[in-house]
Amino acid sequence: MTSLTAVPAYAAPAPKAPLERTTIERRPVGEHDILIDIKFSGICHSDIHQAREGWGDAIFPMVPGHEIAGVVAEVGAGVTRYAVGDRVGVGCFVDSCRHCEYCEQGLEQYCVEGMVATYNGRDKNGDPTYGGYSTHLVVDEGYAVRIPDGLALDVAAPLLCAGITTYSPLRHWNAGPGKRVAVVGLGGLGHMAVKLAHAMGAEVTVLSQSLRKKDDGLRLGADRYYATADESTFTELRGQFDLIVSTVSAPLPIDAYLGLLKVDGAFVNVGAPEEPNSVNMFSLIQGRKTLAGSAIGGIPQTQEMLDFCAEHGIGAEIELIRADEINDAYERVVGSDVRYRFVIDTATI
Amino acid sequence: MTSLTAVPAYAAPAPKAPLERTTIERRPVGEHDILIDIKFSGICHSDIHQAREGWGDAIFPMVPGHEIAGVVAEVGAGVTRYAVGDRVGVGCFVDSCRHCEYCEQGLEQYCVEGMVATYNGRDKNGDPTYGGYSTHLVVDEGYAVRIPDGLALDVAAPLLCAGITTYSPLRHWNAGPGKRVAVVGLGGLGHMAVKLAHAMGAEVTVLSQSLRKKDDGLRLGADRYYATADESTFTELRGQFDLIVSTVSAPLPIDAYLGLLKVDGAFVNVGAPEEPNSVNMFSLIQGRKTLAGSAIGGIPQTQEMLDFCAEHGIGAEIELIRADEINDAYERVVGSDVRYRFVIDTATI
Repeated sequence: MTSLTAVPAYAAPAPKAPLERTTIERRPVGEHDILIDIKFSGICHSDIHQAREGWGDAIFPMVPGHEIAGVVAEVGAGVTRYAVGDRVGVGCFVDSCRHCEYCEQGLEQYCVEGMVATYNGRDKNGDPTYGGYSTHLVVDEGYAVRIPDGLALDVAAPLLCAGITTYSPLRHWNAGPGKRVAVVGLGGLGHMAVKLAHAMGAEVTVLSQSLRKKDDGLRLGADRYYATADESTFTELRGQFDLIVSTVSAPLPIDAYLGLLKVDGAFVNVGAPEEPNSVNMFSLIQGRKTLAGSAIGGIPQTQEMLDFCAEHGIGAEIELIRADEINDAYERVVGSDVRYRFVIDTATI
Repeated sequence: MTSLTAVPAYAAPAPKAPLERTTIERRPVGEHDILIDIKFSGICHSDIHQAREGWGDAIFPMVPGHEIAGVVAEVGAGVTRYAVGDRVGVGCFVDSCRHCEYCEQGLEQYCVEGMVATYNGRDKNGDPTYGGYSTHLVVDEGYAVRIPDGLALDVAAPLLCAGITTYSPLRHWNAGPGKRVAVVGLGGLGHMAVKLAHAMGAEVTVLSQSLRKKDDGLRLGADRYYATADESTFTELRGQFDLIVSTVSAPLPIDAYLGLLKVDGAFVNVGAPEEPNSVNMFSLIQGRKTLAGSAIGGIPQTQEMLDFCAEHGIGAEIELIRADEINDAYERVVGSDVRYRFVIDTATI
């Protein structure tokens, strides 16, 4: 692939318009690039936010998809990490400045110049980026990760966003044996947080609006499951948790959740409410508590996460769909009707 | 002092009433108690909040004062840490449960059963506690700290609240060489934060509403001084700080301040705004930032702070007053007209 190549994709032609089959152009495989034959692509709720321009101005046509799993089909002359046939993944970004203090630490997601998003972004030439709802992708080898043999590609795809987004704060805030971790929300992110925190050895509690998914939660590894619609949950669990990872994007009564933390506990947002939250500083001062946020993870930690998942036999719980089911799947994600991640079989594009 | 003893004090007889001279009773010196001949007592803004019932129901008559420096005048039979003549201090609490996980860690301020406040609290018998605007205090030896010889008692008194309240978060969030620390507000707490962070080796920036106290700030140890009323401050300093300690009790535009943090930076409240703040979770997610709070410090860390201050020659900047000037001093504190702490010479009570 030495010149621009047209490849099939599913794209939103305009904000809020249904996605439809189209073709897009991928750049030639450069010296440090790999061409990935995409096998599976997860559907993240943020795909929908962006395709519908819920997070502000976006670039159209838009090919969403940043949970990408595939096989290397071609490598540039300077590629050293991967060979044709290797199983690889690509997550939420495909480039960054590569020289700022955060890039140098492998925290590319916090690049001072801003990471180049896998889709709805612009690369260094100013060209729009197109994501994983497509058959092929060209990416610099430094922005791909290896999917270990033990992980099936379909259940690995969602790990590239939902997996790393929850793995990173669990590691950063030391989830592990002897620690009590609560996961708020049992959706695409939440179900991964439960599996990962359990595998790390923490005691895991799900805090969900209702007990509707309780059986699932316990099966996925939760030790306890409480309904947040029940006010007694907030008195019963008061002062119990070292870490609460919130995966929901609706604004929460933060002060009530902070009351569930132990001294020095942290409430970490990975879901991204569009509206500001109200926080009483006394809720933080009493107990030296932390309210924090965390965004996906850098390349080294994403690789670490995949290796951890392979070691512990962890994949996402998925519902595999054909590309022509994407629009229906979007409606079901919006309605919280998915257990727990839709994954597109890109052979059907 | 084997029976209740009447001692002179200044008390607020009722909410918002001026403080006036009165007598209060101190308990007999118990087996593990020490009797302190109070020499100096600082005036903390929270004295005023509480004497005016600004933080909810309070106990009257109220003898404020939790920045207490004095000399041991008598010891109980079981006292092992102190002898008559020792120079000691008492801060914001005089007891706690002594057996919860936080008391056992020396984090008595976060005691599960609640610390016993030095004033406006109730001891284990249900009797009201009276603070430092008084000539004598009886306290369990476990809730006093030693004031090193190198520290004068008058400038040491404010360290018991203003000192430890700022020392504790500076230590907890690792202020030190190579770290950039901002201090919001240059009042009683803020001026201590500047001195302490500078002595710890951090680069210190004051963020104050105006440049009115700039000369003071630089003299106290700040490297830089910016006015927050000037909007360009928030663009010029964007992404610079490892730690911001906010000592102000007015609600702040938190998202703007979070923008001043580096990745993994922390904004820590030690001032206590009465009203909730609005926080956009994206401000935390972008850069894995922390919004936190911190309350005073435990007994071991308070001792550590005093030793640190003695080693580095740090005391509070004070204006010594007579007891009959307390009410005027309150008005001046409310009007931010103090550089930087009023201290009562208790010989004048």
